[in-house]
Amino acid sequence: MSTSALIVVDMLNPYGHQDAGLLTASVERTIEPLRRLLERARERDDVRLLYVNDNYGDFTADRDDLVRRAMDGERPDLVEPILPPDDCDFLAKVRHSAFYGTALEYLLSREGVEEVILAGQVTEQCVLYSALDAYVRHFKIKVVRDAVAHIHPDLGFAALRMMDLNMRAKIVPAAQCL
Amino acid sequence: MSTSALIVVDMLNPYGHQDAGLLTASVERTIEPLRRLLERARERDDVRLLYVNDNYGDFTADRDDLVRRAMDGERPDLVEPILPPDDCDFLAKVRHSAFYGTALEYLLSREGVEEVILAGQVTEQCVLYSALDAYVRHFKIKVVRDAVAHIHPDLGFAALRMMDLNMRAKIVPAAQCL
Amino acid sequence: MSTSALIVVDMLNPYGHQDAGLLTASVERTIEPLRRLLERARERDDVRLLYVNDNYGDFTADRDDLVRRAMDGERPDLVEPILPPDDCDFLAKVRHSAFYGTALEYLLSREGVEEVILAGQVTEQCVLYSALDAYVRHFKIKVVRDAVAHIHPDLGFAALRMMDLNMRAKIVPAAQCL
Amino acid sequence: MSTSALIVVDMLNPYGHQDAGLLTASVERTIEPLRRLLERARERDDVRLLYVNDNYGDFTADRDDLVRRAMDGERPDLVEPILPPDDCDFLAKVRHSAFYGTALEYLLSREGVEEVILAGQVTEQCVLYSALDAYVRHFKIKVVRDAVAHIHPDLGFAALRMMDLNMRAKIVPAAQCL
Repeated sequence: MSTSALIVVDMLNPYGHQDAGLLTASVERTIEPLRRLLERARERDDVRLLYVNDNYGDFTADRDDLVRRAMDGERPDLVEPILPPDDCDFLAKVRHSAFYGTALEYLLSREGVEEVILAGQVTEQCVLYSALDAYVRHFKIKVVRDAVAHIHPDLGFAALRMMDLNMRAKIVPAAQCL
Repeated sequence: MSTSALIVVDMLNPYGHQDAGLLTASVERTIEPLRRLLERARERDDVRLLYVNDNYGDFTADRDDLVRRAMDGERPDLVEPILPPDDCDFLAKVRHSAFYGTALEYLLSREGVEEVILAGQVTEQCVLYSALDAYVRHFKIKVVRDAVAHIHPDLGFAALRMMDLNMRAKIVPAAQCL
Repeated sequence: MSTSALIVVDMLNPYGHQDAGLLTASVERTIEPLRRLLERARERDDVRLLYVNDNYGDFTADRDDLVRRAMDGERPDLVEPILPPDDCDFLAKVRHSAFYGTALEYLLSREGVEEVILAGQVTEQCVLYSALDAYVRHFKIKVVRDAVAHIHPDLGFAALRMMDLNMRAKIVPAAQCL
Repeated sequence: MSTSALIVVDMLNPYGHQDAGLLTASVERTIEPLRRLLERARERDDVRLLYVNDNYGDFTADRDDLVRRAMDGERPDLVEPILPPDDCDFLAKVRHSAFYGTALEYLLSREGVEEVILAGQVTEQCVLYSALDAYVRHFKIKVVRDAVAHIHPDLGFAALRMMDLNMRAKIVPAAQCL
């Protein structure tokens, strides 16, 4: 039974929206650490790999649609290296937190997951909010420092401090995460 | 903006499980009324069509997988006539109620939906439980009498009485529903 | 650590509402079995005693107010024998299910409770709905047959059958419950 | 019908815990602005006044207990001026967000509240997390700049920026809030 879940947040992104410029500069640096982390996660029996991605308000969209739109977007080079494998769990979300309006709490609880490992975007938004919702539910938290991307550097830094100080999260580099 | 949502519950079913015999006898009678109701719903601007279906514990499955498994199951004749159109909303659920662990409440609320119209299976289980969760959230409820299927006739009948008496649901035939 | 929770639902009732006549006839029969069950529960280290009661739409009301209004109501004889002890947990609820809009799931989960034992009113409404919400969250369920009260005998009976057949609940007499 | 709700978060605090020194220095500055804001709120028909306070893990505690323990704590001078009036709504919470495990969303929705006005403590914890949960549910948000208290000034400042920039919150002084 898995005891950790690596949760990849919102990395299927067409990068067409406002703020994309600030964001992509940060995302670029996460791709290689995240890609290697995904490789290691897939070799581990005690780590469940899970993608949670916004459906951007389209409730007719399923996983294939979200993958295709991200690949057809502005920056397929930021998508292709970290595409979800076919056999990994996938949840669509509708708002910032990966827990809100999804089966994530149910899934983690049923699988005996005690620790969530957060990667993806945006550090000071969806990552922070998902960490919070994990914390109030008493999951242990790791945040992969070089596999989360911010829009505003100061807020990204403050979010990491909040998770460290107020949610007892471990802030770790990808290379030491698993 | 839609003011009603026709919610089709758990009709993508491979019918391979226990109780399938009792269930399919009842489902057979719902297919033609439901098929016609779906046709009328698609012509109406004020009705949102929404499928909510169990993922049967497989979090890697998406809509296409659930459709294919139902079509590859024991009773494709009960699936093919009521397949979800490509452009309709679709939510995977993990337990009996269509509201539990899903974005259904969020979706209905954002779309201004005031009334939910329930069809599908099983009257005394997922339909009853979804009606309850709609009722505590103050949605108006219609249950399509000839488009819901039961396993146990007495419990199906009791469920309809409960929804009528205790949840102020209107129990209506498909022909008078829209 | 507790492994069971005895949950007393909506027994602080002024009995002034519609249907009170049908209800009180059934409640009368539950008082003595429930009173004895409460005594036994209080002696058990492995049973957590928990009252969950509707606030009847008054968010300024706290536990003392709800107790006093029930004692000042039409049937204090149905309230006084089963009043909550000062040192027991108490949650106000706002709708039918004891889980909706309350900290019940959080409390049970934090205390390591695996089994909920349901008593109170109304069998075919709040008891049934609370059982369902316990079931989707994978709690084991017991329903205390002679300590739950119905309004409609046929629906109360159907609710017990639904909990037995579809939620794997054990339907037990109070004398054999703990 | 109310269209705004002034939500006072965690101001019933015995101030005996870790970090209380850092916290109380900031709380001191909020008492007078908050006290005046409460006065104005009570005169307004379109503002609902609502206290949400942690039960500090004690599910037997009700409102009177939480008030008394705060008044019996280290800093009754920070509690007495802003005590909840008897006729205001009160919800106990169990974790950081005022929405988690409470009836807050239900209450706001039933009362037609569109805007939440947040005051209390701690800016970078419960206030931030409650703002987030309000934001994902599409409430408008105001944060009362001089009636929220932080532990760490830099994180308090970052939290205000996050609410402003990422949750469209208006950061306003108490004197211009109502």
